[in-house]
Amino acid sequence: MEKIEINTDAISYPMPCSLVGAKVDGKANFLTVAWFSMVNSKPPYIMIALGKTHYSNKGIKENGSFSVNIPSVSMADVTDYCGLVSGRKLDKSRVFETFFGKLGTAPMIKECPYNLECKLVQTVDLPVDELFIGEIVAAYSDNRFLTNGIPDMAKIDPFILSMPQTTFHGIGTPVGRAWQIGKSFIKKGG
Amino acid sequence: MEKIEINTDAISYPMPCSLVGAKVDGKANFLTVAWFSMVNSKPPYIMIALGKTHYSNKGIKENGSFSVNIPSVSMADVTDYCGLVSGRKLDKSRVFETFFGKLGTAPMIKECPYNLECKLVQTVDLPVDELFIGEIVAAYSDNRFLTNGIPDMAKIDPFILSMPQTTFHGIGTPVGRAWQIGKSFIKKGG
Repeated sequence: MEKIEINTDAISYPMPCSLVGAKVDGKANFLTVAWFSMVNSKPPYIMIALGKTHYSNKGIKENGSFSVNIPSVSMADVTDYCGLVSGRKLDKSRVFETFFGKLGTAPMIKECPYNLECKLVQTVDLPVDELFIGEIVAAYSDNRFLTNGIPDMAKIDPFILSMPQTTFHGIGTPVGRAWQIGKSFIKKGG
Repeated sequence: MEKIEINTDAISYPMPCSLVGAKVDGKANFLTVAWFSMVNSKPPYIMIALGKTHYSNKGIKENGSFSVNIPSVSMADVTDYCGLVSGRKLDKSRVFETFFGKLGTAPMIKECPYNLECKLVQTVDLPVDELFIGEIVAAYSDNRFLTNGIPDMAKIDPFILSMPQTTFHGIGTPVGRAWQIGKSFIKKGG
């Protein structure tokens, strides 16, 4: 391995794809977001990073809520669509069938197999983006995406964004069990 | 789609897998981390979320630096291994061949095809976890993982963690071009 220094403006790791929902100016709006992550286990907190110029940010702050909706591979085109046009220019409230949960202000997408309803708990201001940290107050799915009552990623069939290639990919074949295959590495004496 | 409310303690989306490097008590330590995300575009900032009890946290704070190393599918077992044993109990400094970059305090993994060297810019305290936001001051790879000088995810061959199934998966087949396939959705009049 000959390490060389490369540019820092083309960060490459499998970025999960979501549609973030927010109520803005009284209407549901949905934004494609690949910069998100769980950030706290108990209570469950999820973080989304949005450029400050996005239309959704105002609604998230005003209502103190947002949703994270996980789309299936079959929804890749409409997911991409929501990232191409701003809610400032186009009313995206009818692109999906929407529903509301406990908070009443975080629109969620019926077509997405998995939905997280989030109450804003903290905002972190960064140079270009702002982080919205939300407590997941409820999660929603449909029986056909569950196995023994819990979400089954094989059934949800999500996709990731490959950067800087700008390509969506499905999830590949299993390569091992987490918290398990490392034990064989120990046995090998690694 | 019949939406039902499900438990919030089994969050399911494709989580990218990394090995976070930090110098702790004078030695390199590496921790398996699936809760990370880009959070700012210019300058490039990346965020990692670590439980407060982890051994690495002290080193990250003391040195003001950490690294994010992306392992290949072929490294799934050793990646899992680093998540099974704490640096408090086991010296992980010799598990990999390490190298240092500009900062001199963020150990990186030679065997990983892609390495991000990060300078800590902000810490966010949450109930169980803490977020370390780092500016990516340098990125490293090897020519065989690059195409036209930029990282190529197909060559890096990273993997994701599927929760709550606790399974690692490779990246699947391409399903379309981002910022492109949404245009055909527009044409369909969606």
